[in-house]
Amino acid sequence: MTSEFEIIERYFKKKIKQTALGIGDDAAMINVQKNHQLVISSDMLIENIHFLKNTNPSHLGWKSLAVNLSDIAAMGSKPKWATLSISLPKINHVWLKKFTEGFFKCANQFGIDLIGGDTTRGPLSISITIMGEIKKNQGLLRSGAKINDDIWVTGQLGLASMGLASLKGKLKLAPRLKIKCLKALEVPAPKISLGSHLSRYANSCIDISDGLIQDLNHILKASKVGATLFLNDIPCEKFIHTSEQYHFVLNGGDDYELLFTAPKKNRSNIKKIAKKTNTSVNIIGAITHKKDLKILNEQGKSVTFNLRGFDHFA
Amino acid sequence: MTSEFEIIERYFKKKIKQTALGIGDDAAMINVQKNHQLVISSDMLIENIHFLKNTNPSHLGWKSLAVNLSDIAAMGSKPKWATLSISLPKINHVWLKKFTEGFFKCANQFGIDLIGGDTTRGPLSISITIMGEIKKNQGLLRSGAKINDDIWVTGQLGLASMGLASLKGKLKLAPRLKIKCLKALEVPAPKISLGSHLSRYANSCIDISDGLIQDLNHILKASKVGATLFLNDIPCEKFIHTSEQYHFVLNGGDDYELLFTAPKKNRSNIKKIAKKTNTSVNIIGAITHKKDLKILNEQGKSVTFNLRGFDHFA
Repeated sequence: MTSEFEIIERYFKKKIKQTALGIGDDAAMINVQKNHQLVISSDMLIENIHFLKNTNPSHLGWKSLAVNLSDIAAMGSKPKWATLSISLPKINHVWLKKFTEGFFKCANQFGIDLIGGDTTRGPLSISITIMGEIKKNQGLLRSGAKINDDIWVTGQLGLASMGLASLKGKLKLAPRLKIKCLKALEVPAPKISLGSHLSRYANSCIDISDGLIQDLNHILKASKVGATLFLNDIPCEKFIHTSEQYHFVLNGGDDYELLFTAPKKNRSNIKKIAKKTNTSVNIIGAITHKKDLKILNEQGKSVTFNLRGFDHFA
Repeated sequence: MTSEFEIIERYFKKKIKQTALGIGDDAAMINVQKNHQLVISSDMLIENIHFLKNTNPSHLGWKSLAVNLSDIAAMGSKPKWATLSISLPKINHVWLKKFTEGFFKCANQFGIDLIGGDTTRGPLSISITIMGEIKKNQGLLRSGAKINDDIWVTGQLGLASMGLASLKGKLKLAPRLKIKCLKALEVPAPKISLGSHLSRYANSCIDISDGLIQDLNHILKASKVGATLFLNDIPCEKFIHTSEQYHFVLNGGDDYELLFTAPKKNRSNIKKIAKKTNTSVNIIGAITHKKDLKILNEQGKSVTFNLRGFDHFA
């Protein structure tokens, strides 16, 4: 029988690059740069809740880390360290090899050291704590949105939830679009490069994990402001407009794009850093003083949808 | 239906005392003191693996945090911040109230801020990341044991595993001893005060979570040394000696006592800080150059036991 320690040695202990003490003692140790704060976030992914049974383990490894990185990006911070606690129904070496391949592919791409965690028996679940650094008082909070700020999003919205609906047999997609949507669902790309440049230009930021509307509402509530969104400016597949299935874009979870607000005068600088970091960005609305959220169609008419976002307990 | 956000507001968001930004944004932010390192550890507790179904939720809340604190104590560090990710089969307000009462009782007693985490649906599991501070290069590692060091332990060993055996109907205990053992199992007291003073006097340290022998072996392996233990000096219940059920003391998991090694010249200082922090300590053996582990009985004869420690996958 393979022991917990052998599994850690074999699959999880990799070379560390920016860590004082890594895996192998009661705790890890890190040094935070002078004049920097540590930024910390934790996320848990559970089989059949956050991912389907039989999800490609390499994709799952990637995604587990990527969704955490996205939280750090949304603070304007650079992620550097992660701990990974995983419970497994049994030791499956093929699964573990693939899972850790995906995990470390993401870790290496974004410069993350795995510094600790736990490996135990139990229903498949993955719990990650991610840590990053940011210069003191430069963190991008949800509470910073100002009236007349532009509302920006990165990437395209709705792809992941369309992918999930397609996997569940609830949505029929053309083959090429289906591939794109499944990639967005299973191998999301956290917007770290852009995020770590945003704190100079943006007033507030959040990552879209529970759906555009729900996550925008977090900014509105924290900043005590309202917003107007222009439905036609939200970057999404043509399919959304032709089929009018806007719920994928407005309520679909798992986008892991950044939603941020910034003064109009910063438009050209934001476009510059977006170009530099190879990230697509679009203005989709504006912050208003009236504390509600209006969605306007092409004709400038206010439209309403069922605006419930994703909730694990709903 | 109560949403994830309502649960967080109601049960998990408490006043923070030493944190730049707490629960409520994409991530938390903390400041690490000048000339200090951050010490980080993660542990996962799963129903039916780490605790029995129907464990008193208040005790479970306490223990989930306490076992993590013990890891930080074993580094000689002072714990300050925690994240808590929890998956729950359903929203049970009575359970949540009790669980968080126990969790925050422990957090308050040891001065911990809960700064983030995740709440989701799933099989009951609790995943905590704990962070503490220590002066640079003062961390107590497993690899620091030196030949001729005394081997010390805090408290009494074997109580928790006796408690578990009794709960499972595999061990009959006198009522008062049973109460003591169940308390050790369900409400362990992490040795934080002593731990945070040890780095001046000890060469190495580990917390005993998987059994004395297994955890001592981690020190021996990391330090490339051996050890002799004196069976009769190991602090435990008389019951262990009379029944000769030494496996509870040697292999029993869940002790959360500290095992540390220190030069003989530090004996009186260690006794002083033990007295000051109201922690019982005992010398149970010595570090040797011969890379094996000997256990001697009262007559000085080497005895052997089945020395397998606790492994979640065994």
